[in-house]
Amino acid sequence: MKIKYPNPSIKNEKTQAVKTHGMLFENALNTTNEYYRLHNKAIIYKKPTPIQVVKVDYPDRTKAKITEAYYKVPSTTDYNGVYKGKYIDYEAKETISKSFSFTHIFPHQIEHLLNVKKHGGIAFVIIYFKSFDEVVIIDIDAFNSEYVEASKDNSRKSIQFEKALQIGKTVKKGYTPPFDYLKVVDEIYF
Amino acid sequence: MKIKYPNPSIKNEKTQAVKTHGMLFENALNTTNEYYRLHNKAIIYKKPTPIQVVKVDYPDRTKAKITEAYYKVPSTTDYNGVYKGKYIDYEAKETISKSFSFTHIFPHQIEHLLNVKKHGGIAFVIIYFKSFDEVVIIDIDAFNSEYVEASKDNSRKSIQFEKALQIGKTVKKGYTPPFDYLKVVDEIYF
Repeated sequence: MKIKYPNPSIKNEKTQAVKTHGMLFENALNTTNEYYRLHNKAIIYKKPTPIQVVKVDYPDRTKAKITEAYYKVPSTTDYNGVYKGKYIDYEAKETISKSFSFTHIFPHQIEHLLNVKKHGGIAFVIIYFKSFDEVVIIDIDAFNSEYVEASKDNSRKSIQFEKALQIGKTVKKGYTPPFDYLKVVDEIYF
Repeated sequence: MKIKYPNPSIKNEKTQAVKTHGMLFENALNTTNEYYRLHNKAIIYKKPTPIQVVKVDYPDRTKAKITEAYYKVPSTTDYNGVYKGKYIDYEAKETISKSFSFTHIFPHQIEHLLNVKKHGGIAFVIIYFKSFDEVVIIDIDAFNSEYVEASKDNSRKSIQFEKALQIGKTVKKGYTPPFDYLKVVDEIYF
């Protein structure tokens, strides 16, 4: 774990970056989680991307070089860990669209999050709506209600941004950490 | 998730296999965790092995083939999840030796488990001693005491099996699931 001292100029760059580039929402979340670990607020990590290794070469005795492998469908979600003694588990998504399409999440991931909540854990989806530059946390039960409703109705296969605001809560952007989402977790779950 | 119906003959094979082959302790743990999920006892998964992807080819538009990648040092531990509302986190190890060498676990993994416990989670090391055909769970605080003691004493860099039995608790082997380790977790933590 690298220690990052507060440096507003660097954090500012990151927050800017979130606004302009894809995939950097994940970086901002990782930075946030690193901040939480360093400040003993929570221990939350991104899980490694599951990869099916097919072929490994050994150019020398100590080094294994993977020469054929494929991305696998993740069994669960992106992030999990412990917060205030509780298990916390969430899936992070970003969209450039004005609504979040349910095709961006696997049904077994929704099922996993519902199960987590049944077992007493904290479970939600966190969505970065790029075009509105807003991050919204939606509890998995609320998210699932929308999902179930949408599956009955062929014309509706997504959550509109306005609807996300109604059923979820927005996360304020900052410098350290970039997205202090545990504040919102406190509001929803504690 | 594939559903596996109880089939004593299959489970029996697996338990046998644990006795004879390496790496199958992990399979037995995975089967146990699958059993727990199916029976709504706990949601615990093995984390994917972290891999650094260097080169990806696209033989066709839909398929990504990784052609150069390397194994990375894991940031955390093998397994985590939720049990009775609590966060649970552990590292699984096996050894053919009569003692467990501390070289088989990374110091940052011990630190991670200690942190988990500080945050109110359940944290331990589970070791399969192949030569004794015994599985022992050692709470991370007890494990760390041994580790700290050993680091002061140059002649001792491992936990003897007998010592493991003293500071830990053995897990009984069975058929479904192969290692019902949550029973031991109940004894230690609940």
